[in-house]
Amino acid sequence: MIEFQEALAFVLGNSNEYGEVSIPLHKANGRVLAENVFADRDFPPFNRATKDGIALNYHGISKGISKFKIQAIAPAGTPQLTLNDNTSCIEVMTGAVLPKNSDTVVMYEHITIQDGFAALTKPIIKGQNIHSKGTDEQEGALILKKGLRIAAAEIGILASVGKSTILVKKNPKVCLVSTGNELVNVDETPKPHQIRKSNSYTLEAGLLDKGISPDTIHIADDKIDTMNALTTIMSENDVVLLSGGVSKGKYDYLPEVFLELGITKIFHKVKQRPGKPFWFGKHQATQTTIFGFPGNPGSTFANFYVYFLPWLNKSLGLQNHEINVILEEEFENTTDLTRFIRAKAILKSSKIVANLIHSNGSGDLTSLTKSNGFIKLAPNRAYKIGQEVVFIPTKRIV
Amino acid sequence: MIEFQEALAFVLGNSNEYGEVSIPLHKANGRVLAENVFADRDFPPFNRATKDGIALNYHGISKGISKFKIQAIAPAGTPQLTLNDNTSCIEVMTGAVLPKNSDTVVMYEHITIQDGFAALTKPIIKGQNIHSKGTDEQEGALILKKGLRIAAAEIGILASVGKSTILVKKNPKVCLVSTGNELVNVDETPKPHQIRKSNSYTLEAGLLDKGISPDTIHIADDKIDTMNALTTIMSENDVVLLSGGVSKGKYDYLPEVFLELGITKIFHKVKQRPGKPFWFGKHQATQTTIFGFPGNPGSTFANFYVYFLPWLNKSLGLQNHEINVILEEEFENTTDLTRFIRAKAILKSSKIVANLIHSNGSGDLTSLTKSNGFIKLAPNRAYKIGQEVVFIPTKRIV
Repeated sequence: MIEFQEALAFVLGNSNEYGEVSIPLHKANGRVLAENVFADRDFPPFNRATKDGIALNYHGISKGISKFKIQAIAPAGTPQLTLNDNTSCIEVMTGAVLPKNSDTVVMYEHITIQDGFAALTKPIIKGQNIHSKGTDEQEGALILKKGLRIAAAEIGILASVGKSTILVKKNPKVCLVSTGNELVNVDETPKPHQIRKSNSYTLEAGLLDKGISPDTIHIADDKIDTMNALTTIMSENDVVLLSGGVSKGKYDYLPEVFLELGITKIFHKVKQRPGKPFWFGKHQATQTTIFGFPGNPGSTFANFYVYFLPWLNKSLGLQNHEINVILEEEFENTTDLTRFIRAKAILKSSKIVANLIHSNGSGDLTSLTKSNGFIKLAPNRAYKIGQEVVFIPTKRIV
Repeated sequence: MIEFQEALAFVLGNSNEYGEVSIPLHKANGRVLAENVFADRDFPPFNRATKDGIALNYHGISKGISKFKIQAIAPAGTPQLTLNDNTSCIEVMTGAVLPKNSDTVVMYEHITIQDGFAALTKPIIKGQNIHSKGTDEQEGALILKKGLRIAAAEIGILASVGKSTILVKKNPKVCLVSTGNELVNVDETPKPHQIRKSNSYTLEAGLLDKGISPDTIHIADDKIDTMNALTTIMSENDVVLLSGGVSKGKYDYLPEVFLELGITKIFHKVKQRPGKPFWFGKHQATQTTIFGFPGNPGSTFANFYVYFLPWLNKSLGLQNHEINVILEEEFENTTDLTRFIRAKAILKSSKIVANLIHSNGSGDLTSLTKSNGFIKLAPNRAYKIGQEVVFIPTKRIV
């Protein structure tokens, strides 16, 4: 049995790279960029009118002209026009290319138009209402750095520079394995001694949040079946997340099966609650990482957020940031275990504060819905109101 | 031109309900629950062993017995056994039904087994290591309330109570419309006066984050084409999000087309930057809500988060919470417009602080990737370091 910090270090130390894959732009949201992206042209690519109005040459104004002959109209999306002289103007629309020989745009609100002439009604500043070529980014500039997580804003940038396909980090292929003869399917009516599967559904939802669509399989509590099933699963997956079968029970074959299959045990059991019987290892032959979570819904749920997501982030090259919140309730951890207490964190003014959700042990799934994360409390330590503690979110807080 | 608060109130005042739909459990993550969910049995459904070990009757211990004959083994998932007498015990596995006549479970770590007898090695508390029937939830109890957003924890609960299909709020059907003759497709090489489409991609990603998969269409700057296309789109969609075509330009047909199509204008133009030319209305005949966003990428992006997402939340029955953060930089809003300034918010200790991202006007998309939201600043007001301001996140902060 090892300490939690040691266990987490082992898990993070066993992160892996899963390579890169080219995907279409519309599927890139949420993925991790695996290439540097450069501006393929200046942004904006031309001197661009930022208002609807007229374009003129300021020389005319400085020579006292206040009424300009309208020479033409330049809509957005048409090639650049040329202004004839300093006594003329060209009507320009937002997004249009600024006409050659013009240097200033006056919006419609600041002119009056009559008989083909535009008269100025407000003072003008030379160069106004122009978004100059290359002022956002110059051609060749690095605009998106490899390693960031792509969200809506980045999707827009990728579109702007013509990246219809993008290189992103490959996600690991994950298989969820539930074990336990007491489990029946969701659409079945359990006998009095049975319960329905829930862990695979919970974990699947957690993985879908990260853009990973796992396979799901149930294995009965039978040693030979388990060995055969795991052999196939490991040959086809990068990660196996199991729930159940890792405690001290007579039918908890998994630790034994893992060793017989040649999976290296990195650790088994952690001084933590919930989630103590966690078994973690790696199958060297297939390079498959094995997360053997305990079967209690609360334990599996906690371990997924406490271990698996940080491992996934690290494997994708993303940073894990520790989140601190203010405790609004005192709590004494009288055990020698690291505790993960269900909590509800909320933003109060600009501070994140958390209250504990009092639950009924690790089998109590319903209290999970009242919480949005876990507070991590060190062994044998008393915590006071107002103290900062580490928070592991299971839902988005802000 | 109206004030921002007025515009937001109009938008929220025009939210709509889109009914309910029954979907399979594995698709329910992120959706809003539209039915109350009750426990279909007690949770746990039986007195459940929470440790691997032996079950016995405490009467035996209180009469001085410390060695119990092992009568049988009760794995999880098998029907309830019956303990013969107070001198016997039954081996029980975690998750097993507590045998009849037994009331206490002793874990393997606290016994030694020899010759078919289990001898106690630690003091025992009556009733220990049992998760009693119905202590989490009693049959018929309301366990998930209509109106909450379903996440991983709720998926597990829904599975536990056998909800293989679930009633959720229907999302509105959304069509994204881009306008502007200067726009070409992402996979095309733009001519010098052209730029690539990006708004539809950005908005699509923002909608996918909310589980909405929109249709996307581009309409050329032609009045008749626009009228025909919009007529079809409105007959097939609950919401139309347009970008471009709502300013004062000669080819900004949209406001005119909207009125000719019988769309009620709720407002046009808001005293805000970016996003001022926003046109908002409703087509009474088809009950389609029209968000006419300006074409500048920064304007459309801001308006999506400032108006559309709160509108969507309200339409789905979710609450909108104002988020406050601490400003780490002073800023004076010298305009009479509500400003939405790109900002980067981070959690510093337990406080959310924000720094401004200095950008180059509303056409500057690349600065959006450096920010994770907008700070809202009131007209004609100076803000100091350390002051609380409203923050509109465009990415998850915590």
